[in-house]
Amino acid sequence: MTREQLIEQINIRQSYLCVGLDSDMEKIPKHLLSFNDPQFEFNKRIIDATLEHCVSYKINTAFYESLGAKGWESLQKTVRYIPDTHFTIADAKRGDIGNTSAQYAKAFFDTLNFDAVTVAPYMGSDSVKPFLAYPGKWTILLGLTSNEGAGDFELLQAGGGYLFETVLNTSAAWGHTGNLMFVIGATRPEMVKDIRDRYPDHFFLVPGVGAQGGSLAEISQNGLNRDCGLLVNASRAVIFAASHEQFASAAAMAAREYHEEMRVFLRMHDS
Amino acid sequence: MTREQLIEQINIRQSYLCVGLDSDMEKIPKHLLSFNDPQFEFNKRIIDATLEHCVSYKINTAFYESLGAKGWESLQKTVRYIPDTHFTIADAKRGDIGNTSAQYAKAFFDTLNFDAVTVAPYMGSDSVKPFLAYPGKWTILLGLTSNEGAGDFELLQAGGGYLFETVLNTSAAWGHTGNLMFVIGATRPEMVKDIRDRYPDHFFLVPGVGAQGGSLAEISQNGLNRDCGLLVNASRAVIFAASHEQFASAAAMAAREYHEEMRVFLRMHDS
Repeated sequence: MTREQLIEQINIRQSYLCVGLDSDMEKIPKHLLSFNDPQFEFNKRIIDATLEHCVSYKINTAFYESLGAKGWESLQKTVRYIPDTHFTIADAKRGDIGNTSAQYAKAFFDTLNFDAVTVAPYMGSDSVKPFLAYPGKWTILLGLTSNEGAGDFELLQAGGGYLFETVLNTSAAWGHTGNLMFVIGATRPEMVKDIRDRYPDHFFLVPGVGAQGGSLAEISQNGLNRDCGLLVNASRAVIFAASHEQFASAAAMAAREYHEEMRVFLRMHDS
Repeated sequence: MTREQLIEQINIRQSYLCVGLDSDMEKIPKHLLSFNDPQFEFNKRIIDATLEHCVSYKINTAFYESLGAKGWESLQKTVRYIPDTHFTIADAKRGDIGNTSAQYAKAFFDTLNFDAVTVAPYMGSDSVKPFLAYPGKWTILLGLTSNEGAGDFELLQAGGGYLFETVLNTSAAWGHTGNLMFVIGATRPEMVKDIRDRYPDHFFLVPGVGAQGGSLAEISQNGLNRDCGLLVNASRAVIFAASHEQFASAAAMAAREYHEEMRVFLRMHDS
């Protein structure tokens, strides 16, 4: 999906919600466990129920890998099930030496046909560039993550600013606003305004709203740009809104709440 | 495998070679392609041929993921095929927020029963600790990697030294010499002596010998400790030593060469 197509989808739906399919087998409703592929059955119902409220789905590969090859199959079926109106993200946080990163890029862009993959920056340029080399695909590089441990290294002074700022500065030159996004967590909203000032045009993928405690209002106020420029992810708060048989309606309702807030924030930002 | 068991295996075999199963489908001998699972058939023959020369196998997940669920099955079959005399490493470079890292740990330690997994440090403590929490298992944290891009961030000044040094200092307190190793590349051997002085007892997993140009002699001279303390990986230089029907004997011969050198370095270090 191109940048223009993504912006078009955001405009059509008036939403910048990304639903995170962290489909933990321990948490999916018990009545689905009798299906041959409970994880896929769960995802299908969640996708059907939330489609109109979001523009993107993020598949967290860990929750599939933990089931081995069977989980990888559920992942494959899930990404194929998502309609091409929606931007698909493999939240995989990969990154390795060049020839290996090229294989990861192949895995997520060719074999699985995701629009985007999250990538870890630690190993530097040759670990990231093979992802950026795929035409029509997106690399979403970790910048400032939403977890507490972000303070350990990302917030060290390095290269003339915080390490994460140096990561953004350095990597911005490897790609462009049509193939490179940054992960910017919602749990430190006071830092987002400054990051937006430095990168007025890049899209940010924002985790940390919902279960992790980040505020959608604050991140929207500080992070929206003229093209929207945000994909705000909610995982557990949407997909595990309820664990009873009507879990999908509960997920739809949780997604609708985010959607309604987002409509308002988009309108406020436009005016 | 415990530290004591690993050291015992090194002593028995007089080898600290790790064979990297970067089993790229484009590079495996063409006559294997008629098998139902060419990747596994290739690995089986490589393992049989190199077993006596190495103490460890490292499976690079990227080369399996690039084939989707089918590749993940080859990976599963491969790790099960490796005898428990040999230390098994999932070279996966994972790392995510706590609840997600816990799923990755489950994937590699429970579902696949690897002895060790490589982990990326960027996201900090809660991204690493779930791996360290598994009794009897190992976390191999990226320190100074072997690729050129290591210079982009790992060698920035941060926290009172190079970023990678701060990563080692900080993370050393999260684990101990019986559950935590560091990735230290062979391509900057001049730095290894100093790292060994600071961490006299930790095991280092050393990539970068062979195709990447690192010298086994230099890394051994600077990195061996009283327990050996090194696992030196060679991937392409061993497994793709030849592409003809006798590829397995060629791999054995390449592994034997490393093995013979290692015998000498161990003897020199002991005396």
